[in-house]
Amino acid sequence: MAFHSSVLLKSKKIQKNRKVSKFSTSDYNYKTEYFTQKVDHFGFVNQDTYQQRYLIADQYWDPNGGPIFLYTGNEGDITLFCNNTGFMWDIAPEFKAMLIFAEHRYYGTSIPYGQTAFKDPKKMNFLTSEQALADYAVLIKHIKSSIPGSSQSKVIAFGGSYGGMLAAWFRMKYPNVVQGSLAASAPIWTFRKEADCDAFDRTVTGTFRKSSSACVDNIKALWKTLNTTASQASGLSKLSEIFHLCKPLKSADDVTTLKNWIVSALVYLAMVDYPYPSKFLAPLPAWPVKETCRPISTPLNGDNLIIGTAKAMNVFYNYTGSTSCFDIGSGDIPNLGISGWDYQSCTEMVAPSCSNGKTDMFEKSAWDFKEYTNGCLKNWKVKPDINWIETQYWGKNLSAASNIIFSNGLLDPWSSGGVLKSQSDSVVAILIPNGAHHLDLRGSNKADPADVVSARNQEKKYIATWLKSP
Amino acid sequence: MAFHSSVLLKSKKIQKNRKVSKFSTSDYNYKTEYFTQKVDHFGFVNQDTYQQRYLIADQYWDPNGGPIFLYTGNEGDITLFCNNTGFMWDIAPEFKAMLIFAEHRYYGTSIPYGQTAFKDPKKMNFLTSEQALADYAVLIKHIKSSIPGSSQSKVIAFGGSYGGMLAAWFRMKYPNVVQGSLAASAPIWTFRKEADCDAFDRTVTGTFRKSSSACVDNIKALWKTLNTTASQASGLSKLSEIFHLCKPLKSADDVTTLKNWIVSALVYLAMVDYPYPSKFLAPLPAWPVKETCRPISTPLNGDNLIIGTAKAMNVFYNYTGSTSCFDIGSGDIPNLGISGWDYQSCTEMVAPSCSNGKTDMFEKSAWDFKEYTNGCLKNWKVKPDINWIETQYWGKNLSAASNIIFSNGLLDPWSSGGVLKSQSDSVVAILIPNGAHHLDLRGSNKADPADVVSARNQEKKYIATWLKSP
Repeated sequence: MAFHSSVLLKSKKIQKNRKVSKFSTSDYNYKTEYFTQKVDHFGFVNQDTYQQRYLIADQYWDPNGGPIFLYTGNEGDITLFCNNTGFMWDIAPEFKAMLIFAEHRYYGTSIPYGQTAFKDPKKMNFLTSEQALADYAVLIKHIKSSIPGSSQSKVIAFGGSYGGMLAAWFRMKYPNVVQGSLAASAPIWTFRKEADCDAFDRTVTGTFRKSSSACVDNIKALWKTLNTTASQASGLSKLSEIFHLCKPLKSADDVTTLKNWIVSALVYLAMVDYPYPSKFLAPLPAWPVKETCRPISTPLNGDNLIIGTAKAMNVFYNYTGSTSCFDIGSGDIPNLGISGWDYQSCTEMVAPSCSNGKTDMFEKSAWDFKEYTNGCLKNWKVKPDINWIETQYWGKNLSAASNIIFSNGLLDPWSSGGVLKSQSDSVVAILIPNGAHHLDLRGSNKADPADVVSARNQEKKYIATWLKSP
Repeated sequence: MAFHSSVLLKSKKIQKNRKVSKFSTSDYNYKTEYFTQKVDHFGFVNQDTYQQRYLIADQYWDPNGGPIFLYTGNEGDITLFCNNTGFMWDIAPEFKAMLIFAEHRYYGTSIPYGQTAFKDPKKMNFLTSEQALADYAVLIKHIKSSIPGSSQSKVIAFGGSYGGMLAAWFRMKYPNVVQGSLAASAPIWTFRKEADCDAFDRTVTGTFRKSSSACVDNIKALWKTLNTTASQASGLSKLSEIFHLCKPLKSADDVTTLKNWIVSALVYLAMVDYPYPSKFLAPLPAWPVKETCRPISTPLNGDNLIIGTAKAMNVFYNYTGSTSCFDIGSGDIPNLGISGWDYQSCTEMVAPSCSNGKTDMFEKSAWDFKEYTNGCLKNWKVKPDINWIETQYWGKNLSAASNIIFSNGLLDPWSSGGVLKSQSDSVVAILIPNGAHHLDLRGSNKADPADVVSARNQEKKYIATWLKSP
């Protein structure tokens, strides 16, 4: 499974044509603002600017220096993260904090040069994590100089996934601007040349095994079964029918697309294996991995295995029951910026990815950086640099960092690239064995397992300590 | 005196046409190497490279993990800094250290796009401190991966003046690459909007007052006397004759040029007021401020004041006695990159500068950022950003920094923008009351005052501690 390359955005190959829909409702009350940012913080020739969107909520804020809680936006529409980061809303009254959710450049509505940028590699040049962090630093300076009472406010950064990486890096590179950071499910060590490329898939597999080991065995056997069926007479139409595909399979490539579609669901399911119904990446029941495994939790083979898998896929792709057929060539997750992340994964954010088919349940697949590079040159005319992130963001040497919490849910496959051990007294790891992808950032829920409740309490304590220190 | 804008390169107006000569001899034994660097570390569209020069000396190095001492090159030919940083050479045997002197991009021979770059603002876009720091980080990674025995070597950065700022910032931004930094005479707090714009000139004045208070009073009176003389019949030719000018003064502008030429000498003299003969910025006697003041150390006025000043100028501009007349429109300091620094001071490195004529000995002159900006737009088509450096390099909030020594000679006018108080146990200030501009970085000399000897001993102790820590 060497094709995935993103954090929230797995399986880029199959999600390229996904529609972007508007997130329309919110339980939370905020204002939407825009700030004029330089397109290029690291050079002076390009003096273009763009409008960065940010959401601001000051109803809980103590204007006599109450803190600022900043969400460092990641690869998508900032309203998505605002609405799925209930933890910040839950604790704002207690800390009398102002909330700011800052959109990442080239996502949502904060796109330098507008949508045409995605068709012109030159205009994409300013989509980097460094530029995004500079945006956040400059935005905070603007807030502090323009909102009365905030000039001495301490800032705490919050982020999940890539946004968590940004929160951690923000503290590392701009500790003058941010007092401390909660980096939830931030796989900062995935984006390294030396990363263990099959760790991700091994973790997905582990999360499924926790629900049912027969389920894992079935999935392991599935790929060969699909190949066998596909190679039989009428095999393709049989598969098309069983899986309720809108367009019948016609070639071996289409079978690969089908497999990727299945893999993508499995990966996402492990990421969002939350203890209650949620709709972060898709509308899903509580503990969706268990639900997915239900039809394939006894030993199956042949057609039964295929039929069982098709039923299982309904959990991720059709939990609302509104889909009559599946378009496996398009994606299903609104509000995430596919093109932007594809560009980032072709430049700085290179995550070596592979599977071995033994310790994981996927087809064997090698990490081929050369092929990866060729794809990037073709699509974006850029060459990925697999060494840069480690140089720029300190790799495994975090001894000079301070005031960062790295929290990881161990059900989450991205935990494989996370910081799972405390690095010092003030760079601490919090583990959530029953948590999926940044569960701790979500709003409190009566179905929350004890470990995430405890994690949030620890996080609050660290934040309180940081706010008290000079 | 609002026209100066640089660290080593004061008085840019009068030094624009300075010849660049080759530094040909060295007391030190090193090899010259080149490394292929990306022109743009912060974007992926421009895939151009350039050859970065560095000097390397491994004769003292313990190839079983001995440390690397890196000089983070500043605005000039790296051989100049190599030959004037004897401290690194002096202590290398004791620490069994490898020495590397890395040239700063756009200076010396390390010029992306070659000399034509200086005529094309677009090609200058990659001259920033951020790009230079990235060069140093990538270079060290290259050294460690290519020189057997160095992969675990700890790195200590050294730098003076702007190079000292880079050494400090290098530790702040890349502590994964560098274990600690000696930032000598690094005026990091001069490049701030809030900087006290007349502090520099006040410090120059203080250094002269230490030699002779009559000298200061004379210089204070000089400017009006020059104006009065210039406005008299034959006044311009009288001044031209007294000052031995190659081209006679013809206008009020020429008189301004003459004043700037005098101011420039005074400023440089305070910077290099070393206790023994030196030739860092010019060939000079020991304690050159005292020597300069000698002809004007009794109360003078009228022609006597002018004649005395002309004699005084001989110390800085003609100590070798080889000059028969002075070309006040050109400069005299070889190996510094005027165009490069002029660009940097028009982008990131904005040092508010003024004089009040009361607490300093110069003509009153206001800081006019608008005029400054217009000059930059005219010369380079760029607009300076006076806020950026403070955001990027933490301003006065160094609480998250570690392992940095800020040393300052108090005779040095740049000490006015330096870190003169320890910020924590590991971000420490060392003061050298009888030291000029980074005297501590120079090789040991029997004329060294006790305070610089003590400073170097403290510096060695800190370095030893950093090297011992994990």
